Amino acid sequence: MNGLNAYRDLETHFKKLNTVGDALSVLHWDASVMMPAGGAAARSDQLAALRGISHELMTDARIGDLIDAAEGAALDPWQAANLHEMRRSYLRASAVPQRLVEALSKATSACEHTWRSAKLESDFAKVAPLLQEVLDLTLEEAGILGEVLGMTLYDALIDTYEPGASAAAIGAIFEDYAAFLPGFLGSVLEKQKQAGEKPVPVGPFAVEKQESLARHLAATVGFDFSAGRMDVSAHPFSTGYAGDRRITVSYNTEDPILALMAALHETGHALYEQNLPAEWQGQPVGHARGMAIHESQSLLIEMQACRTPEFVSFLAPLFREAYGDQDAFQEENLLRLYHWVQPGFIRVMADEVTYPAHVILRFRLEQALLSGDLALADLPGAWNEGMQGLLGITPPSDRFGCLQDIHWYTGSFGYFPTYTLGAMTAAQLFHAATQADAAILPGLSKGDFSGLRGWLKKNVHSLASSVSSDEIVVHATGHSLDPKAFEAHLQRRYLPN
Amino acid sequence: MNGLNAYRDLETHFKKLNTVGDALSVLHWDASVMMPAGGAAARSDQLAALRGISHELMTDARIGDLIDAAEGAALDPWQAANLHEMRRSYLRASAVPQRLVEALSKATSACEHTWRSAKLESDFAKVAPLLQEVLDLTLEEAGILGEVLGMTLYDALIDTYEPGASAAAIGAIFEDYAAFLPGFLGSVLEKQKQAGEKPVPVGPFAVEKQESLARHLAATVGFDFSAGRMDVSAHPFSTGYAGDRRITVSYNTEDPILALMAALHETGHALYEQNLPAEWQGQPVGHARGMAIHESQSLLIEMQACRTPEFVSFLAPLFREAYGDQDAFQEENLLRLYHWVQPGFIRVMADEVTYPAHVILRFRLEQALLSGDLALADLPGAWNEGMQGLLGITPPSDRFGCLQDIHWYTGSFGYFPTYTLGAMTAAQLFHAATQADAAILPGLSKGDFSGLRGWLKKNVHSLASSVSSDEIVVHATGHSLDPKAFEAHLQRRYLPN
Repeated sequence: MNGLNAYRDLETHFKKLNTVGDALSVLHWDASVMMPAGGAAARSDQLAALRGISHELMTDARIGDLIDAAEGAALDPWQAANLHEMRRSYLRASAVPQRLVEALSKATSACEHTWRSAKLESDFAKVAPLLQEVLDLTLEEAGILGEVLGMTLYDALIDTYEPGASAAAIGAIFEDYAAFLPGFLGSVLEKQKQAGEKPVPVGPFAVEKQESLARHLAATVGFDFSAGRMDVSAHPFSTGYAGDRRITVSYNTEDPILALMAALHETGHALYEQNLPAEWQGQPVGHARGMAIHESQSLLIEMQACRTPEFVSFLAPLFREAYGDQDAFQEENLLRLYHWVQPGFIRVMADEVTYPAHVILRFRLEQALLSGDLALADLPGAWNEGMQGLLGITPPSDRFGCLQDIHWYTGSFGYFPTYTLGAMTAAQLFHAATQADAAILPGLSKGDFSGLRGWLKKNVHSLASSVSSDEIVVHATGHSLDPKAFEAHLQRRYLPN
Repeated sequence: MNGLNAYRDLETHFKKLNTVGDALSVLHWDASVMMPAGGAAARSDQLAALRGISHELMTDARIGDLIDAAEGAALDPWQAANLHEMRRSYLRASAVPQRLVEALSKATSACEHTWRSAKLESDFAKVAPLLQEVLDLTLEEAGILGEVLGMTLYDALIDTYEPGASAAAIGAIFEDYAAFLPGFLGSVLEKQKQAGEKPVPVGPFAVEKQESLARHLAATVGFDFSAGRMDVSAHPFSTGYAGDRRITVSYNTEDPILALMAALHETGHALYEQNLPAEWQGQPVGHARGMAIHESQSLLIEMQACRTPEFVSFLAPLFREAYGDQDAFQEENLLRLYHWVQPGFIRVMADEVTYPAHVILRFRLEQALLSGDLALADLPGAWNEGMQGLLGITPPSDRFGCLQDIHWYTGSFGYFPTYTLGAMTAAQLFHAATQADAAILPGLSKGDFSGLRGWLKKNVHSLASSVSSDEIVVHATGHSLDPKAFEAHLQRRYLPN
């Protein structure tokens, strides 16, 4: 077959595959946001049927032949990158036997279900046998993927979420931070203590007001409501497809900040998706790069831009207008709130200084679990010991320890590192952006994100998956991801000279 | 292959097919109710991809062999009826060549698009060439279907919507009504005139109040909100899948009755779906019977039960509570409003007495178009002449004539008769129900629909597609559909002795 024709056939096939994936995202969104309880059973059948159809399309035996035939064609760089992504997806999907896919799906469903009650009851032993099964099947899958991709077993899992990353490189970055953290954290806490008590917003804060503010700020950052929605769900997330990005928020009437920051976080994810190149829509190369870059975009908005003194000076009057002129919403108090550091047990509640410690702990532990160095029965103890070592605190029960996150119980090993890679990438990118365009920071004090958006679109969003994550970072900042950039950001923000 | 195994394989296959259809219904609902404008292009790709997958599943060559193999198996009556429905669907889907399916899809899309502006501009000539193409392709499809199914061309189209119906039988029913109408209508209008002016509700009527009342009444009739939703869309419709039925309403602040009746209409459709037998969910035999029975269920709630003096006596105080104690909402005035008869140009605004005239006109005209007796260029004139003959009025322009309905322009020939078959079936069923259970009518005056629901579930809903429409009507009322039953209902309601 003619190489270019083969490539064109692949584009058609992957476009269809992508379209089924888009349909799945609508069904998922609806299940979390709209569906009445009665629809759950049939919806689960719908999702399974479409996932099955998607898997059949992905593993269609003709794809391998077409990819081989297309290799010889004269492709432009984006087409070549597209073919590279196609091969990667096909290799991964076709390597794992259907029997194993189904066994994993069954095991993770059962484990997740039991995890929900085990977490509430703080009873790790209850879910341990199911987690062992998930772990065993994940090891089998990782072994197969590692062989096909020529990687270690753990790297093959990381590659699922962040192609190109490796445990060795991540380990070096994380150990650097683990060495930096204790001294830095001590100084920050000491300085914070000397500055006085934590400001306390006085609620309740009506959901309507929070929602109105969240919408206003999402639009301010650049979320396009004519090509997206913002709704309510139990946990915030963002999803959607080209022209229709949907973000969700969960409001708490006692806390006016949590939902707002979640909305800005999801807006960062959505902006990335809304700015992907239209001409590669639906093709593998047109997708967002891995989870670390995706997380860098949400954290760049939430943690970098929207916690600068400049943006907080724009935000404080809006808070006072919405919730009344209280102490906590004076500019300097709001900034202190946004920069508050407090070691705690729960990852998702952590500040940006201590958050990496939560991830480093999980990164260490999941490697030990996968290598067999750590038996599942010893996980709770190892967790608590690790927390003590990293943050100097010991969870009172496993609910606040190894049962807190859903990831492992649904088979997501290798995912956690992307959170901190994302946070570090965000700091490095934001610093580069503000260095490249001196108008960006002053703009934020007027709610003007156009400069930042333009820089991100040009340097990150528009590249989609045409190059690797490392190439994106090098192209945008002049060098590879460096933990020192993140540490320098923290120094500037928390311990300026 | 063993016959019973073949049958089991068919059940599995049709369950998957049904699940893809369910997913399509969620995507359709979302497109009408939730989707931002930016999502339209990609959504259309999603719908086309899933429709394509559905068509591939429906025309899979193995199905014919499995059906043949299953014919010999010892099946119980529901299984046998299921196999019958499978054969019917397979025959219809596999008869039409893919080329024709695609040509029709393209032609109807283009025609519908142009119809929207042609209607606004009242310019039939603008859309006529596109309608001609739709008509030609429909004729080709009908010819193929007629041959496969052993029916006339028009009956093959009717069979798409209402299996078992025929133009001959429908014609006899409609001509009976056409003969009944002029004298009856004259007497009703004369009597109505003598009773005084039409009561006029004084608005505006806040959407929130209308919605709250619509929800309350839908729940009163029996809509299960834990297994369904009620939302807003441009035109009311009902859709969904097992455990998750969704109805939509469109509110008009100047009219408190239109949206409410639409909500009750869609509730009637949804009740039918919510009461289908759970054990046959996802199988062809478990689906609602044709469109005439479906429409009978919506009209039985909207036109029969909810316009009885009993129900209006329950409703009037609710109206006064919501909108204030005005004249139009005194019980006898509200009843007069609900029973108001007024010949008009627009089908969807018609009362139950004149509505059949609109359908009879379309039934006559579409037969003439399909047989070639009527050229498309002559349609506007024939329409206006027909309206004059049936209702004594002539549309001022084609917007109020042959351009008003979307059906033909999207290729739906043979659909219109089901509206009036539904209205007549509703009258016959409701009369039988109230005769069988003397507590039903008094119940409605207290908002108690349990007796009516029980009768409908037992006599209609629970039968699903296990028997024909005619068998449902005979089983429930003692005889086949008879226009005299509808005429007797109108006599009792409008000209009681």
